[in-house]
Amino acid sequence: MPRIAYVNGAYVPHRHATVHIEDRGYQFADGAYEVVNAFRGRLIDERLHLDRLDRSLGELSIAPPMTRQAMRLIMREVVRRNRMTTGLLYLQVTRGVAPRDHKFPPAIKPALVMTARSIPEFPKEMHDDGVKILTIPDIRWARCDIKSVALLPNILGKQAAAEADAYEAWMVEAGDYITEGSSSNAWIVTADNILVTRPTGNRILAGITRRAIFGMAEELGYTIEERAFTVAEAYAAKEAFMSNSSHFVTPVTQIDDAVIANGKPGNLTLELHERYVRYMEAAIPLQSLEA
Amino acid sequence: MPRIAYVNGAYVPHRHATVHIEDRGYQFADGAYEVVNAFRGRLIDERLHLDRLDRSLGELSIAPPMTRQAMRLIMREVVRRNRMTTGLLYLQVTRGVAPRDHKFPPAIKPALVMTARSIPEFPKEMHDDGVKILTIPDIRWARCDIKSVALLPNILGKQAAAEADAYEAWMVEAGDYITEGSSSNAWIVTADNILVTRPTGNRILAGITRRAIFGMAEELGYTIEERAFTVAEAYAAKEAFMSNSSHFVTPVTQIDDAVIANGKPGNLTLELHERYVRYMEAAIPLQSLEA
Repeated sequence: MPRIAYVNGAYVPHRHATVHIEDRGYQFADGAYEVVNAFRGRLIDERLHLDRLDRSLGELSIAPPMTRQAMRLIMREVVRRNRMTTGLLYLQVTRGVAPRDHKFPPAIKPALVMTARSIPEFPKEMHDDGVKILTIPDIRWARCDIKSVALLPNILGKQAAAEADAYEAWMVEAGDYITEGSSSNAWIVTADNILVTRPTGNRILAGITRRAIFGMAEELGYTIEERAFTVAEAYAAKEAFMSNSSHFVTPVTQIDDAVIANGKPGNLTLELHERYVRYMEAAIPLQSLEA
Repeated sequence: MPRIAYVNGAYVPHRHATVHIEDRGYQFADGAYEVVNAFRGRLIDERLHLDRLDRSLGELSIAPPMTRQAMRLIMREVVRRNRMTTGLLYLQVTRGVAPRDHKFPPAIKPALVMTARSIPEFPKEMHDDGVKILTIPDIRWARCDIKSVALLPNILGKQAAAEADAYEAWMVEAGDYITEGSSSNAWIVTADNILVTRPTGNRILAGITRRAIFGMAEELGYTIEERAFTVAEAYAAKEAFMSNSSHFVTPVTQIDDAVIANGKPGNLTLELHERYVRYMEAAIPLQSLEA
C-alpha cells in the first residue's frame, strides 16, 4: 500500500506530496511541527501535542491553519489511509507561500502537511541495553521552547552522535549544564533516588513524555527536582535516561566515555518505561474516539 | 511573461515549482542559500557568492549539487528565461529528500532551486533619506557564519523592525554589542572618520558587499576597524549604514529613538554607495561571460 500524505487540503500519494518552493518553511524555516505517537491504534496525548502546536504557532504569530476539530479529523484520516496502528504521525504548519521577503507577508493561508509512518512497536535492544549519549556544545538559538522546523543545530548534533556511535547528543551550555537532547529531554537519577531534569523555559522544549513522567514518578512515590544539572553529575548518576514521544523512556547506559553505574538500564528507568507503556495502553482507541 | 524557476533539473513555471515534503530543507532547515545581485545585465560578485555557498555547504557536510561550471550555466539560463537585467537571483541547496530522521541520510542527491526576480534599480528614498534601525536581542544560534535557511530568528527580527516602523533590525548580544542586521551587516563611522564593523567569525555572516567596502574604503583613504561596537557607540556615531547584496550601502539615519548625527545620510556613506554602483557597473556583462 502506498503511503498517503495530507498536503494543504488534499490526500496525495507520498511520492507526489510537494509544497511550493516559496513556502516559507522551505526558505526561512518559518513553521512549527509536532510528532504524535500512535500506539496500538491510539494517538498518545493528542490534546497536549495540539496544545503545544498552538503555543508554538502563537509564539511565531502564525494563525492555526484550521479548527482543532478539523485538524483532528484529518489526523484520523491520515492514520486510517496509512493503516497505521503503531507509528508516528507528523504534523507541520508553516506560515504559507509568499514571494521571498523576511518580514511576515500580509494575510496568507498557513500551510499544513501531515504524514504517517508505521514503525516497529519497541526498539527492544534500546530498552534492554540502553543507549550511549555524546555530549556536545549547545549552539542553538534562545527559543528552544518553540518546536520550530529550524532544526539545523539538532540534526548536526544527532549526526555528531551517530558518528561517535552514540544514539543521541545531549547539549551542554556554558557552566557545563546539560539542556536537553537533540530530539529528547534528558534525565538523571541521583544516588538518593531523586529524579532530576531541566526546568522548562526558553532553553528546552517542554516535552509531552517528560510531562507524563511527572505523573508517573509521583504515583511511584519519587521526587523530581527540576533544575539544571552538569555533565559531571550525569557521569556520576545512579541512572540516566532520555524521554520523547517516539521512544518513550529510553535508558542511557553510557555518556561520552563514562559508563553509568554498572552499565545496565536502571530499575527506576525500566519501571517508568513499563508504566509509560501501560499509560499508552490506557488511552482511548482511535476508532472509538469522536474526532 | 511567467516567471521560471529551476528545480532539481527542470525549468518550471514559478507557480508549479515545488519540492517534496520530505526535502530536508522543509523539515529541518537543512540547507544553505545565496542571493546574487543582478545589476544592468551583470551578476555581481558571482564567484564570491559561489565560494561562500561552497563554504556553507562544506560546514554542513552537504555535497555540491553539481560542478560550479554547471551551476553557472543554470544561473545564466534562469536569468535569461526571466529576462532579468536588474534583480535578485536566489539559489538554495538542501541536503535532499529522505524519510524524516535527524541524522544525515546515506548518499542522497542534494536539491537545488533557483529563482530570479526583477526589482527596481534603486530604492531611491532609502538612499535619499536613510532608514531607521530597531535594535533587538540577538537570539540566533552560534554559527551565524553559515548562510543556512534556518532563518526563523532573522524573520522574527525583521518583522519586529517592521512593526516598529523600522527597515531593519540590528541584533545585540550580551555586553550590548551589535552583531549584525537580520539580513545585512552593520557599520558605523566614528567622529574620527574611522569605519567600524564587526569582525567576521561565528557571530556574523561574512558579507560579500561588506568585503567590497573594504576595498573601496582603502581606495578612499579611510581606515576600517574590525571590532565589536556597542549600541551606545552606534547612537553617538557620525554616520551609520548597513550593507548587503540587495541594497548595497544603505544610510542609517535613526537607531531606535536616536537620530544619527543631523538625521541625514552621511557623506562617507553616500560616497561608498556611489562607488559601489560604479563597482557594479564595471562588472563584466553576462552576455559576454563564458559560463
